[in-house]
Amino acid sequence: MSVVRLTLAYDGTGFRGWAKQRGQRTVEGVLTDALSRFLGEVPRLSVAGRTDAGVHARAQVASFAAPANTVDLTRLQRSVNTMLSPEVVVTDARWMSNGFDARFSATAREYRYRIDVGPWSDPFEARFVWSRPRELSVGAMRAAARHLVGEHDFSAFSRSAGEGTSNVRRLQRLAVSRAGDRVDVVARANAFAHQMVRSLVGMLAAVGDGSRDAAQVPLVLESRDRGRVPSIAPPHGLTLERVLYGRNSRVDARPGDEGA
Amino acid sequence: MSVVRLTLAYDGTGFRGWAKQRGQRTVEGVLTDALSRFLGEVPRLSVAGRTDAGVHARAQVASFAAPANTVDLTRLQRSVNTMLSPEVVVTDARWMSNGFDARFSATAREYRYRIDVGPWSDPFEARFVWSRPRELSVGAMRAAARHLVGEHDFSAFSRSAGEGTSNVRRLQRLAVSRAGDRVDVVARANAFAHQMVRSLVGMLAAVGDGSRDAAQVPLVLESRDRGRVPSIAPPHGLTLERVLYGRNSRVDARPGDEGA
Repeated sequence: MSVVRLTLAYDGTGFRGWAKQRGQRTVEGVLTDALSRFLGEVPRLSVAGRTDAGVHARAQVASFAAPANTVDLTRLQRSVNTMLSPEVVVTDARWMSNGFDARFSATAREYRYRIDVGPWSDPFEARFVWSRPRELSVGAMRAAARHLVGEHDFSAFSRSAGEGTSNVRRLQRLAVSRAGDRVDVVARANAFAHQMVRSLVGMLAAVGDGSRDAAQVPLVLESRDRGRVPSIAPPHGLTLERVLYGRNSRVDARPGDEGA
Repeated sequence: MSVVRLTLAYDGTGFRGWAKQRGQRTVEGVLTDALSRFLGEVPRLSVAGRTDAGVHARAQVASFAAPANTVDLTRLQRSVNTMLSPEVVVTDARWMSNGFDARFSATAREYRYRIDVGPWSDPFEARFVWSRPRELSVGAMRAAARHLVGEHDFSAFSRSAGEGTSNVRRLQRLAVSRAGDRVDVVARANAFAHQMVRSLVGMLAAVGDGSRDAAQVPLVLESRDRGRVPSIAPPHGLTLERVLYGRNSRVDARPGDEGA
């Protein structure tokens, strides 16, 4: 068996997230159906980022095993896109050596969260940007972000994944940028705990508008108490922008327990 | 009586165009309802561009008469946006001197038509861009555009508005630009006949992909025969970008018979 790697872009507005759920319209669900129709059998998908309901992706990565070179990937891509675009689009399809797994081989995930502080939501961007008409101090947000970068137990910034599940993650980057009324937060980590990016953005926004102080951030982090995060930013502002793989794309020992 | 001028942005996807129609959801319809709830009476709207079903606007202009300075425009804007955003947003509201009329005072309208020639539609732009996966020669499109600029009878490029209606318009600009897979056409005229921009774009696209020759364009124009235009570009790629008014914004003698 060999492995097919798909790169995917999708507008998450109409989906209950990535993961297949009985009776729910999900990205994994419609993609599995489309692939099944083409392949004549049901592929088992592995995915780099299990995006939540309403979260988008510009370059999500999924993979599935298939007998080596038995599938015409150009036709597969065209067939799936005919069925699913423009909501879901396969932007790239290629063979990977055995052992590649979209989830376990990934070394990092990068998300972008888009905020518009202008008085009105722009109709052309409303599906992908959180309209939050309150001034934000980028300087204060950056001061808060500095306390969060690094390897930490992010339990305060995660929806509980159940007893015994670790929320230790290595946050490599948490960058805040501004252009006009748009304030963007880019977050990159080896993996993200459930709702972690949106919880981090909720914290940064509260610091940015002055309702919290950046100096409180280390205390919130250390508390591991989810109740101390002021709010969780809504899902539609969040997009999985890219997934990084090591040069060898070998299987990583550590499962990326995704669900940002 | 004085006049209120509203500048509007809207995503036209969910509307049967601008103009109020019984039993149809239109931009004028929902806006009139929202204004009526705030004003306590039904305003009669004048509009610069009567956009068709599915066509968008970034800076549409509408106006209505109201007793001078009796209305708090800051509250009006907030109230309407609370009801209608993000689908329709009032981006500006101000008093104009008596005699101003959004339609009759306008000296020009400018539309942008967005085409993506890439193999797949981008999920993040699909609502506002025509996905047309065939290579286009910008040089050939520009050659065709040169034959169209100026004052002409655009009957070949217009849906008939009935006997005795003139389709003579002054096309001031028809510019083609390219960035990556995106090919944009900007059209500016004193006014546009019904479906005129989309007919022009259909012609330019046919010349751009080589199925028609730029040299045929003057013959099509002179024929005044709508049957000779190869196709009408779909509405969702079209956006009314701005409306121009003279320095005095006085009433123009010539009605802009809009409906691009």
